Amino acid sequence: MAQYKAPLRDINFVRTELFKMEAFYQSIDCWSEVGPDLTNAIADECAKFSENVISPLYSSGDREGCHLVDGEVKTPSGFKEAYQQYVEGGWTSLEGPVEFGGQGLPSGVSIAVTEMIGTANWAWSMYPGLSHGASCTIEAHGTPDQKNLFLAKLVEGVWTGTMCLTESHCGTDLGLLRTKAEPDGDGTYQITGTKIFISSGDHDLAENILHIVLARLPDAPKGTKGISLFIVPKFLLDESGNIGQRNHLSCGSLEEKMGIHGNATCVMNFDGAKGYLIGPENRGLNCMFTFMNTARIGTAVQGLAHAELAYQNSLAYASERLQMRSMSGVVAKDKEADPIIVHPDVRRMLLTQKVFAEGGRMLVHWVTLLSDKLSLADGDDAKEQEDMLSLLTPIAKAFMTETGFEAANLGLQIFGGHGYIREWGMEQNVRDSRISMLYEGTTGIQALDLLGRKVLLKGGKPLMQLLAIIGDFCEEHKNEQAMANFIGPLQSLAGDWGELTTQLGALAMQDPDEINAACVDYLMFSGYVCYAYLWAKASALSLAELDAGNDDKSFYQRKLYASQFYYQRILPRTESLKLTMMSGVKNLLDEDIDPFSM
Amino acid sequence: MAQYKAPLRDINFVRTELFKMEAFYQSIDCWSEVGPDLTNAIADECAKFSENVISPLYSSGDREGCHLVDGEVKTPSGFKEAYQQYVEGGWTSLEGPVEFGGQGLPSGVSIAVTEMIGTANWAWSMYPGLSHGASCTIEAHGTPDQKNLFLAKLVEGVWTGTMCLTESHCGTDLGLLRTKAEPDGDGTYQITGTKIFISSGDHDLAENILHIVLARLPDAPKGTKGISLFIVPKFLLDESGNIGQRNHLSCGSLEEKMGIHGNATCVMNFDGAKGYLIGPENRGLNCMFTFMNTARIGTAVQGLAHAELAYQNSLAYASERLQMRSMSGVVAKDKEADPIIVHPDVRRMLLTQKVFAEGGRMLVHWVTLLSDKLSLADGDDAKEQEDMLSLLTPIAKAFMTETGFEAANLGLQIFGGHGYIREWGMEQNVRDSRISMLYEGTTGIQALDLLGRKVLLKGGKPLMQLLAIIGDFCEEHKNEQAMANFIGPLQSLAGDWGELTTQLGALAMQDPDEINAACVDYLMFSGYVCYAYLWAKASALSLAELDAGNDDKSFYQRKLYASQFYYQRILPRTESLKLTMMSGVKNLLDEDIDPFSM
Repeated sequence: MAQYKAPLRDINFVRTELFKMEAFYQSIDCWSEVGPDLTNAIADECAKFSENVISPLYSSGDREGCHLVDGEVKTPSGFKEAYQQYVEGGWTSLEGPVEFGGQGLPSGVSIAVTEMIGTANWAWSMYPGLSHGASCTIEAHGTPDQKNLFLAKLVEGVWTGTMCLTESHCGTDLGLLRTKAEPDGDGTYQITGTKIFISSGDHDLAENILHIVLARLPDAPKGTKGISLFIVPKFLLDESGNIGQRNHLSCGSLEEKMGIHGNATCVMNFDGAKGYLIGPENRGLNCMFTFMNTARIGTAVQGLAHAELAYQNSLAYASERLQMRSMSGVVAKDKEADPIIVHPDVRRMLLTQKVFAEGGRMLVHWVTLLSDKLSLADGDDAKEQEDMLSLLTPIAKAFMTETGFEAANLGLQIFGGHGYIREWGMEQNVRDSRISMLYEGTTGIQALDLLGRKVLLKGGKPLMQLLAIIGDFCEEHKNEQAMANFIGPLQSLAGDWGELTTQLGALAMQDPDEINAACVDYLMFSGYVCYAYLWAKASALSLAELDAGNDDKSFYQRKLYASQFYYQRILPRTESLKLTMMSGVKNLLDEDIDPFSM
Repeated sequence: MAQYKAPLRDINFVRTELFKMEAFYQSIDCWSEVGPDLTNAIADECAKFSENVISPLYSSGDREGCHLVDGEVKTPSGFKEAYQQYVEGGWTSLEGPVEFGGQGLPSGVSIAVTEMIGTANWAWSMYPGLSHGASCTIEAHGTPDQKNLFLAKLVEGVWTGTMCLTESHCGTDLGLLRTKAEPDGDGTYQITGTKIFISSGDHDLAENILHIVLARLPDAPKGTKGISLFIVPKFLLDESGNIGQRNHLSCGSLEEKMGIHGNATCVMNFDGAKGYLIGPENRGLNCMFTFMNTARIGTAVQGLAHAELAYQNSLAYASERLQMRSMSGVVAKDKEADPIIVHPDVRRMLLTQKVFAEGGRMLVHWVTLLSDKLSLADGDDAKEQEDMLSLLTPIAKAFMTETGFEAANLGLQIFGGHGYIREWGMEQNVRDSRISMLYEGTTGIQALDLLGRKVLLKGGKPLMQLLAIIGDFCEEHKNEQAMANFIGPLQSLAGDWGELTTQLGALAMQDPDEINAACVDYLMFSGYVCYAYLWAKASALSLAELDAGNDDKSFYQRKLYASQFYYQRILPRTESLKLTMMSGVKNLLDEDIDPFSM
């Protein structure tokens, strides 16, 4: 089965050395204690928990799956006990607000925890993962009473949360949703409808579950402007705030799905369940975006998680599996064949996994640092941080999950026929990863969001900000000989990015379908360029450390080598994306022909 | 669940119109009856069988899987009955030699049958599929007695066959294999060893199973030059050739795997089982190549099958699923949203599936026509056909399975969250397809075979032949205005292909590892150019038919449109492959650095 060892050295490199996150946090009053001692101690503890408690449930959770027994969901053996330990370890409260029992730590610290528990066992990590989104939503939009009643429990971890958007006829298109919310006369609402694909929708890990549900008030406007948001608990509370009677909601069935079997994906039936309005009437979708954006970053981490797990296990297998001799001469003279890691094509696959995992780690740290900065900012400053964050979010979500799936598949490939067999854990990693390009908005939806809303609708301003950051970086390093292989291509691609955007904007003026036609290629191009910037940044730092005689010389040499690999073997994919994104909508949609008759 | 409708019109287009296969067959004495009436009648019947008998077992076979009960494998419900009908319909004997009860039809006719039953239900189709390879092997290398004894039964379909190569410590590297064959004194051998990953290794469909087994004679030379080939039946025969006692072999266990659950993947234990030497001593691997080449073409068809199944089901879903409005204005005014097929990005995915499915159909027909021609040829002519066939085989196997997997994944993507749920059948299609890049030689192994053995080792001669065919085609059509968008890029890419090969050959002279470093990108590049040639060929024909006023105008217009899509949206991938394949082994393997320490 798949083994997991937390990549603490690389996490430290990205957080402390590359983004100097602690230095920033310590400059802020409320985070003045968040120094490297604290962040490393948290990471060390989480590594132990992930490796020793969560990772061992990876295969068994997949095999056993969840079961609906007498209307209640039973999670796989060991899940509940592990969750108990997680709560007792205080892991659910890391980011929670201090006034509700949380530790008030920045996102840039807890993101490593999300990565570690997610890589060890993604299906398990989704139970606390959804709670985090529910907490953020209540914190942002809840009344003081709601926060007192619900938020403290979520932060403590004794209750968990869910996100109830999708109905069978509407996923992407929430304007179509039908779940009703009728006022009950006492300020609460009766929620009636059926939601599908509800991750962690029911389970036995916690004493209560808070469903964050989109529904329509009577006479609400049609479409997305008539949707409101409600908190709907599994158990109602008595007058003293203790668990009371069962609310009128239940898990109707569990979806049978390709992977993440350890997580309960539920059909949830709300039959006049009592709900509490959160945020203004008919503004539910806006409020839910708090949840969705949190979930998108969480899903981005999923891409990194599957790449990392695939890489670690592929590397171990490739180092041990003996098969064929190196084409340039025998390597392991005492063995009957060479370990397959000697073959350049196997190394190509391993390095691809490595640059996607480590590239993803850089991108999510960047994004969470931005979100921490945004939480402190106001005025123009806040606008700028928000623009940048909202530009990078769809890129992180879609690009990291697409490349994560690619890396997971390479894991299966490196194992050869054994990769297809369950016991090795690599096919599970592929199955588990496949959902990541679908939920929280498909790759296509992220791409539309990026090109349509975040770039063109904003007149390209956030993109220009990003290109300025890349431009400044290039300017700073343009005279360093050792950086030449990175700065040249990066500068050129940043220029292309701006230019292509202008051209697509002009095309979209004539036909808005051009946006839809180009968007996925545009997003993938954007992702490759973002990783190129991050790998160049990692290279500049590594060169500086080597120059300064840092003791951990081989770590920085490996970074430089991986960066070179990225620039030479991965980044050229941008060449074809440039061509395809500019090839026009006409080869997809032409009123004179229906290309799809059978 | 997934639905299947045989694409008879397109099969006819490829076989009869594009490759004019019947015209060729009718010019040959032994095939003079193989006219369009016969080929269409066969295809029509097979379509009914595939749609009505095999396709309905697609989902149930996956759910139920195979079970080992008291040492015998039980296949899923309905598999045995369907196989019975298949045998009764004479489908197992299509290509079998007439003298052993076969119908003696060319491969170019039966390939459509392989496609149809395989698309309807790949796991089921592997039972007769392996028998076909076993037949070809015995026909090519067996003694007259062996043919009388075994071949007739395989052709009749009452017995089936398997291919027993892999052992737990050796898959790719067969030189390491340990299974022993000891002479029994009576001309037979005692086979002892354990084989793994044996598809259709045991089952309840047929009364006997012939295992074609690689093993070592005592004192055989080490490595691949000391391997011999044996026929090892599950049941021995009594003196009158009837089923006698059980041979000393058994299925030790069934592999739990990602997909193709309906097919039994067995660990086979041979415990001094009686075996019959086939072909010369120590030349077993050469004889087994007959089986392997057949299996590689079969697996190439698998790529096409998953692309076709994904396309058909995605198209139906995208035409019905209502979600969002077209960006260029409402399409379905009477509906609450537009069907998702209006969105260019969804069309991009559908067209990708379509060009991979139809491109693959063209490539396998081309390859099987070559194999039919080879079966008639001798002397220089045979050499030329064989060279071309052996050049195209690794391309077909690897490129068609890689693109088949891509198309299957797009199927899941088009279904959104529903794609991840079992009942829709799209995640099964992905799981089933994933094996195709592994068995019968991974993509990496096909790529090494292509660039190392089929191209460079032969001094580029077979490639030059192929480039001459493409060159002649371009020459023929270079003055047709309507072909300009195809001929220009095709000519240029054919030129690149030759040039890149020369450059890689020069690099390989300095360091043979350059071959391993470049080979997968080289193979994928080759595949894209082959499809470009085939799509151009289909376009030329379609233009001619349109000019001639063919009644089926919209069919040819759709072909042209798909071809244009292929050239504009898929073929540009060659641009990045050109760069990465030439980027050198140094970014993968550098003696000064170990990039993989954790």
